[in-house]
Amino acid sequence: MTLRRSWLPSANTPDTDFPLNNLPCGVFSDDLPPRCGIAIGDMILDVAALEAEGILTLADHPVFDVPFWNDCMELGPAAWADLRAQITAMLAEGSTKQFVVEDHLVPMASATLHMPFLVSEYTDFYAGRHHAFNVGSMFRDPANALPPNWLHIPIGYNGRASSVVVSGTDVRRPWGQLKPQGSDAPIFAPSARFDFELELGAVVGTGSDGPITVAQADAMIFGYVLLNDWSARDIQAWEYQPLGPFQAKATATTISPWIVMRAALEPFRTPTPPREVPLLPYLREPGPMLYDIAVSVALTPESGAESTISRTNYAEMYYSAPQQLTHHASSGCPMAVGDLLGSGTISGPERANRGSLLELSWGGKEPLEITGGTRTFLQDGDTITLRGHATGAGYRIGFGDCTGRVTPALKDWPQ
Amino acid sequence: MTLRRSWLPSANTPDTDFPLNNLPCGVFSDDLPPRCGIAIGDMILDVAALEAEGILTLADHPVFDVPFWNDCMELGPAAWADLRAQITAMLAEGSTKQFVVEDHLVPMASATLHMPFLVSEYTDFYAGRHHAFNVGSMFRDPANALPPNWLHIPIGYNGRASSVVVSGTDVRRPWGQLKPQGSDAPIFAPSARFDFELELGAVVGTGSDGPITVAQADAMIFGYVLLNDWSARDIQAWEYQPLGPFQAKATATTISPWIVMRAALEPFRTPTPPREVPLLPYLREPGPMLYDIAVSVALTPESGAESTISRTNYAEMYYSAPQQLTHHASSGCPMAVGDLLGSGTISGPERANRGSLLELSWGGKEPLEITGGTRTFLQDGDTITLRGHATGAGYRIGFGDCTGRVTPALKDWPQ
Repeated sequence: MTLRRSWLPSANTPDTDFPLNNLPCGVFSDDLPPRCGIAIGDMILDVAALEAEGILTLADHPVFDVPFWNDCMELGPAAWADLRAQITAMLAEGSTKQFVVEDHLVPMASATLHMPFLVSEYTDFYAGRHHAFNVGSMFRDPANALPPNWLHIPIGYNGRASSVVVSGTDVRRPWGQLKPQGSDAPIFAPSARFDFELELGAVVGTGSDGPITVAQADAMIFGYVLLNDWSARDIQAWEYQPLGPFQAKATATTISPWIVMRAALEPFRTPTPPREVPLLPYLREPGPMLYDIAVSVALTPESGAESTISRTNYAEMYYSAPQQLTHHASSGCPMAVGDLLGSGTISGPERANRGSLLELSWGGKEPLEITGGTRTFLQDGDTITLRGHATGAGYRIGFGDCTGRVTPALKDWPQ
Repeated sequence: MTLRRSWLPSANTPDTDFPLNNLPCGVFSDDLPPRCGIAIGDMILDVAALEAEGILTLADHPVFDVPFWNDCMELGPAAWADLRAQITAMLAEGSTKQFVVEDHLVPMASATLHMPFLVSEYTDFYAGRHHAFNVGSMFRDPANALPPNWLHIPIGYNGRASSVVVSGTDVRRPWGQLKPQGSDAPIFAPSARFDFELELGAVVGTGSDGPITVAQADAMIFGYVLLNDWSARDIQAWEYQPLGPFQAKATATTISPWIVMRAALEPFRTPTPPREVPLLPYLREPGPMLYDIAVSVALTPESGAESTISRTNYAEMYYSAPQQLTHHASSGCPMAVGDLLGSGTISGPERANRGSLLELSWGGKEPLEITGGTRTFLQDGDTITLRGHATGAGYRIGFGDCTGRVTPALKDWPQ
């Protein structure tokens, strides 16, 4: 796939996240309240205004004059394709609509970005093999790092939708129950091992209420976001047995401001790795369901310089989002428009490819070098920035930066 | 507390779940669409109609003409108390409003009951000590049945709000990954160990976005429901390590059609049991936070007779719902109106007090006698009915039956 040229010059530069091939979905505000927009180059196309003026029509009722993409998602995959076709025609080089559309471009630099959709429910998976192996080695037993079910089930747990925030939102270091090493009893204190996790999130755009095949699940996915699953490792270690992570993962989960639609990622499909043991038939993929998306993590200390601390690829996952969605629905669990599925931490085989500080510093034992210092876990004032790009011929598909800054814990706890 | 007498005779009988002291909140339909109602004796008071006619006023906008109680909950505790005061005055013996109110009573027998509120998110706890001990003995090690954190943390996991259904909804036996004993690999098949769990659910009526004390958490709870956390034990055993139960608990969770408001339960407050180890200060209770509510489970085979298979009391819990809510919010997790917190299975000390078939049949090894047969786990056609009552002088506070019937699994799985 090559670059689709737009009459908007900033959409044709090789380093923009948002060429005409991308058209990701976000929610923005300027002088007017939050509404739906599509990123193009360094601008946001105000699709709510286009719809109000009758230039863009997707349904017999407005779907873009709201601060979330759920109403558009509800229209289903045919409408999503129609949206891309209409917007592509408007923004393409030579479009006859340039002069009416131009009035509805808002500079991204002057806009505020909001949560792009209402999260119905949030589920986080554990589908990165290197990550599962690393964590299993540290939390449990290096000889049996991978749990016995791991090669058969896309292991996941339900997270907390209310804690999902958009890129740019500060994240306060949590308090929690911790059990200091060598102590007999837990204490209640701010987390000393606060961490990030590099993930992609799949946004479910079509609901279900019964069994779904992997192919059906793929068609239900509206798009993907970058996702940082902030994790308090000391809270996690003490709480997670026997019912899994709970408060360790409930402080915040940050997503990128832009949902990259599945259609924009089509040229970058890539298969899951060879299966070590055969999957049960309900989980088998009819074709490639991962994407070749290079992802990275940068850490910027307060008033310090940015260091890129991890580079890996979404193609490292052992299970794809459609497989996870199929498994999620397998018990009869109804899935809904706006459900968010975290991929699990994306770690690669080498130290430089690890998607969390837990892994990068090996549980705090091997401090990581960054510009002007070292890190085991996050310090107050640290900003974490996730980035992701699929690269075509002369263009790339990006999500925009997914950032969050750690602010100090509350000083006191109310009694 | 003694019976408050109503001019409605059926509200004054000692065996009704719904005397004037109760006034629980539900959603019903008859010839008109679903709307809010309050149970009284064998009738439902149509509060949406009372509001429309100006007989009942709680806010400057209508809150009862919708098929959920969330809008009323949003008004906050002062409005909840106001609602009870207005309805109590209308329905009390000697009320001057009897003749206008009578027109808005709908016979419960002719109404359909719906989900009483929109579930924002659903969390299930594990706060019954006997249950945790029994399950720990079976799933893990009898010598270390109680996990080390159990006496310090109200252990919980996030469940799936989309799977919560109202009493009377059929529950289809799920398919899932199971690992038959002695087998090397899992299979994908209908669950053979499908079970119920006897619980109470707390309905959060006020949101939060920061730390909350146990007293504040108590004030945030709108009311309580009966809750059956259907559980596929074979799926659970294979999937739950290391991230907790997932599909085993996602088929359905059934709640009673009536939310009993906290105010109705005030006379029945009772303390949590003595602490074996002191709780951390953030979890300490300022007063009694459990309730003396006798709960029971009945099993009715298809075309068979009902057998009561368990009787216990909500006062058996080690942690109260306010403690669970305080812990839930402790990491900074925002809590919302409509959040549902399952208590955890309520089991008492003896076999006859166990709140699940897993415990009653000790993992299937000790079949339970029922009228006309035995049970290890649920069979197709079995109906489970949960009941709960707090008993005052000459009256009782009930939730209405919380029932669900197991229907056969899907015959085939789509490929």
